[in-house]
Amino acid sequence: MISNRDTIAALATPLGTSAIAIVRASGPDCAAIARDALELPHPPLPRVATHADYRDRSGALLDDVVAIYYAAPNSYTGDDILEISCHGNPFIAQKILEDLLARGCRPAEAGEFTRRAFANGRIDLSQAEAVMDLIHARSERALTAANQQLRGSLERHLDTLTENLLSALARIEAYIDFPDEDLPAEDRAIVRRGIEELSKGTARLLATQHYGELLREGIRTVIIGEPNAGKSSLLNRLVGQERALVSAEPGTTRDFIEERLHIGPHCLRLIDTAGLNPSPAPLEKLGMQKTLERAAEADLFLLVLDATRPHPNLPPEILEKLSQENALIVLNKIDLVPVAGAATGNSKSLNSKSQTNLKFQISNSKNNNITHFCETSCVTGEGLDALEKAIIDRAETFRRDQGDEIIAINARHADALSRAQTSLVSALAHLDANGPVELLAADLRAALDAYGEIGGRIDNERMLDHLFATFCIGK
Amino acid sequence: MISNRDTIAALATPLGTSAIAIVRASGPDCAAIARDALELPHPPLPRVATHADYRDRSGALLDDVVAIYYAAPNSYTGDDILEISCHGNPFIAQKILEDLLARGCRPAEAGEFTRRAFANGRIDLSQAEAVMDLIHARSERALTAANQQLRGSLERHLDTLTENLLSALARIEAYIDFPDEDLPAEDRAIVRRGIEELSKGTARLLATQHYGELLREGIRTVIIGEPNAGKSSLLNRLVGQERALVSAEPGTTRDFIEERLHIGPHCLRLIDTAGLNPSPAPLEKLGMQKTLERAAEADLFLLVLDATRPHPNLPPEILEKLSQENALIVLNKIDLVPVAGAATGNSKSLNSKSQTNLKFQISNSKNNNITHFCETSCVTGEGLDALEKAIIDRAETFRRDQGDEIIAINARHADALSRAQTSLVSALAHLDANGPVELLAADLRAALDAYGEIGGRIDNERMLDHLFATFCIGK
Repeated sequence: MISNRDTIAALATPLGTSAIAIVRASGPDCAAIARDALELPHPPLPRVATHADYRDRSGALLDDVVAIYYAAPNSYTGDDILEISCHGNPFIAQKILEDLLARGCRPAEAGEFTRRAFANGRIDLSQAEAVMDLIHARSERALTAANQQLRGSLERHLDTLTENLLSALARIEAYIDFPDEDLPAEDRAIVRRGIEELSKGTARLLATQHYGELLREGIRTVIIGEPNAGKSSLLNRLVGQERALVSAEPGTTRDFIEERLHIGPHCLRLIDTAGLNPSPAPLEKLGMQKTLERAAEADLFLLVLDATRPHPNLPPEILEKLSQENALIVLNKIDLVPVAGAATGNSKSLNSKSQTNLKFQISNSKNNNITHFCETSCVTGEGLDALEKAIIDRAETFRRDQGDEIIAINARHADALSRAQTSLVSALAHLDANGPVELLAADLRAALDAYGEIGGRIDNERMLDHLFATFCIGK
Repeated sequence: MISNRDTIAALATPLGTSAIAIVRASGPDCAAIARDALELPHPPLPRVATHADYRDRSGALLDDVVAIYYAAPNSYTGDDILEISCHGNPFIAQKILEDLLARGCRPAEAGEFTRRAFANGRIDLSQAEAVMDLIHARSERALTAANQQLRGSLERHLDTLTENLLSALARIEAYIDFPDEDLPAEDRAIVRRGIEELSKGTARLLATQHYGELLREGIRTVIIGEPNAGKSSLLNRLVGQERALVSAEPGTTRDFIEERLHIGPHCLRLIDTAGLNPSPAPLEKLGMQKTLERAAEADLFLLVLDATRPHPNLPPEILEKLSQENALIVLNKIDLVPVAGAATGNSKSLNSKSQTNLKFQISNSKNNNITHFCETSCVTGEGLDALEKAIIDRAETFRRDQGDEIIAINARHADALSRAQTSLVSALAHLDANGPVELLAADLRAALDAYGEIGGRIDNERMLDHLFATFCIGK
C-alpha cells in the first residue's frame, strides 16, 4: 500500500526537446516547496501563473519557470498540486525533479496522480479509466466516448441499475427475517419483472464491450482477395489520402502491412494480407494460413475483387467468416471495365452480369449474402470517397447502444457486469424455485457489489494496483 | 518576411503519450479564441489557470483543459498568449491545434514565439539565443552559462564596449567636419588607448568561443593508449558509474565508442579509440589513422598507460598533440603493481622509476612535459574519483574568462566580434598613419555595428531567419 500522505512528483510531459516541459508534485509539501524553490515572498497564490526563478536546495539557479499552485481540494488530485513549467529540456526537467525529490518528494507511481483523485473522491473508478482512455484515444469517436465516460455517462447507467436493484432488494428484505413466510405472489411478480429488466439492462451494457474494444484498439480491418486484385493499391490509396495522420506502428507481422488511419470519426487498423489463391502452392499455403489467422481477429473485411475477372474463386474457410455485418465488397479496377451505355453518356458502370456472378460467389454456406458493394479504381481514385463512406456506415453498425451518449465498456467493466448477470440469473432461478428469500437477497447483493465495483465503490486494493499500473507516470 | 500580426499556434511539448500536453497560441486573436472555444462568460482573466471544456468550431467537445491567458505586453512573446494544457494525447493536441488553425491561427515557424519576444523588445538577440542554449543545455555548466546569458551577461559586456567605443567616436567626430585639421596629439593618445582597450576586451570575449563550443557540444575527450592498457575498461568504469545520466548517441563512428557522461558540472563526449601500436600491421594502421582523426578534434586527452609495463612506445604524431593543458595521464592497472613498502603497511604506490620513465615518454618534441598523473585500477575502482576530480580541474582551465559569470560566446557572436576586431585594428592603423579622421570614424562605426549585431540592434532579416530556423517549433 502506497501512502497518500507523501508528496509525489513526476515529469508530466514526454521526454524530448521542446518549448515547454512540466514537472508536477502533489501532496502536503507543495506550498512550502513553492515558497522555498521559487523564493516567493508570500504563500503561492492558487491558480495564478507565477513567473519565477527555480533554485535548487543549494541555491543554484536551474531555470526560470512558470509555476502554478492548486490548493486542496480544488485540484486534479484533490490534494495540493504544484505544476512547474520549465524550458523543454529533459536535462532541466530532470534537475527540477531531482530537486523535488531532494526536498522530500517521492517519485510518483504510474497513475498515482489519478489514483489520488479517486482516493479523494474527485472521480470514480470508471472516470479514472476514462482519463486513461482520453490519453490513449486515437479517433474522434474514442475521444467522444472517453469524454462522456469522464463525465459519468457509464456511471449514470449503473446508478439507474443500482437504484432498481436496491428497490427490488427493499421489496424482499422485509421477508428475510421471517424465513417461514413465502414471498407473496404480487411481490414475486414485481421482483421478477424488476430482475428481468436489470438483466436486460446489464446485457445492453455488456453488448457494448466489443465496440469498446474497437474504440480503444482501432477497427481491425483486413483486406482480403485474390492475388493482384489491387489490395495493396487500396491500402496505399486509403492510407495515402490521410498519410499525415497515419502512424506506422512498429512490431507489425513481417508478412502483413498494418497501418493506422482515420476514416471519419473512426480509427482503422488496416491490414493488407497475402492474396488468396484457391489452389495454392505449398509456400502460398503458409501465407494463406497467416491470412486466416488475421481473418480470425478481423472486425471488418474489405473483400477486394477484380472487376475485370467475373469469377473469383475464394477459399470457403475465408468465405465462412464473411457476413452482411462485417464485410464490404470492393469491386476494384472499374477503370478497366468496358463502359456500358457509353453512347448515352452514362458513367462507367459494372455490367449487371458480373455483379450477379459476384453476389453468387460471396454467398457462403451459411447463406450470408453480402450486398454492400463499392466500385473503385485505385488508379483514378474513383469510388474511394464512396468506399470511405461505406466503411463509416459499417463502423457505425458496430455500436450496440443508442442515443447521443456512447457507452463502450472495457474488459474490467465486462467482467463485473458478467458476474452481476450471473447473480441475476441465479436470483431468477431462486425466484422460480420459490427458494429461500435469503439466497435471492444474497444474489441481488452480489449483483449490487458487482455494479459497485465498476465505479470503485467496492474496495479492492489489488485490482486498484493493477488498474493504475497501466497508467503512465505523471498522470 | 513573416507577419507579426498573425496569431500563431504550435504544440509546445514533445509528441508522445503523457499526462499533459500544451498547445499555445500568440497574437491578437487569443482572447477571442479563448472566450469562444472555452465558452467563457467573460474575457479570460490574465494568468489565472482556468479549467474548462475545449470545444471545436463545430461545438464538439475535444477535452477538458486548463487554459492560461497572458495579456500583452506581459507575456513571453510580448503579444497576447493562450496556453492550453490538455491531456497528454498527441491526437487531442493535434485536434486542438487544428481547431486553432480553423479559427484563423497560422502554424508558428520554428522559433517564432521567441522571435516575437525579440521583435517586441522583450529580449535581445543574445538572450533569444540563450533560450535555445537553455533548451539544449546538457550539463550544469551549460545551464548556468545559458541562464546568465538569458539574464544579459554577454550584453552587459557589450554595453561596456559600446559605451567606450561611443566615447572614442565622440572625441573624434568633432574633427570630421574639418578635414584639414589633424587630431591633436592629446586626443590621439586618448583615442589610441581607448581603441587598444576595446581591442583587448574584444579579444577577451573572442577567447571564450572555444569554451562556448565545449559547453554546447560537450568536451570531446579522447581516450588513447597502447592496446590492452585498459582504455575500454576506463570508458566503462566512467560511464557505468553514471550510467543513469548517460545517453548513447546514435551515429557514432563504427570504429569508435562515444558516450556522453556528466562529470561534475561538465558534459563529456567520451571517445574510446583503437589501441596505438608503434609498429602497426597494415590493418592496424587504418585504425590508427581514425584515432588520429579523432585526436585532431579532441579537447582533452586521457592517455591510458599500463602501470605494469614501464616503457610505452607511442607514435610521435599522437604525442605531438598532447600538452600539459589538454592531457591527463591515467596510469592504469595499479592493482597489479608490486606494493612498495608493503612491510610498513603503506598502500600500493607506483615505484618512482616507472614514473620517471613515463614522464620521459610523454615529453614530446615540443618539450611539453605532461605532469598531470592519475593512478587508477579499473578492476578495483581505485583512483577513479581522483581521476574525475582531475578531469574537472582540467575542464575548468578551458574557461577563458574570470569571475562568477560565465561568458561563452557562440559562432555568430565570434563572427561579429572578429569583424569588430578587424575594424579596431584598421582604426589603429589609420591612427598610426595619421590618416583622415573620416576613415578612422568609419572603422569605429563598423566596430559599433558589429557589437550591435550581437544583441540584434542592427537589423538583418536574413540573419534572423537563419538564426530562428534553428529553434524548435513551438518556442
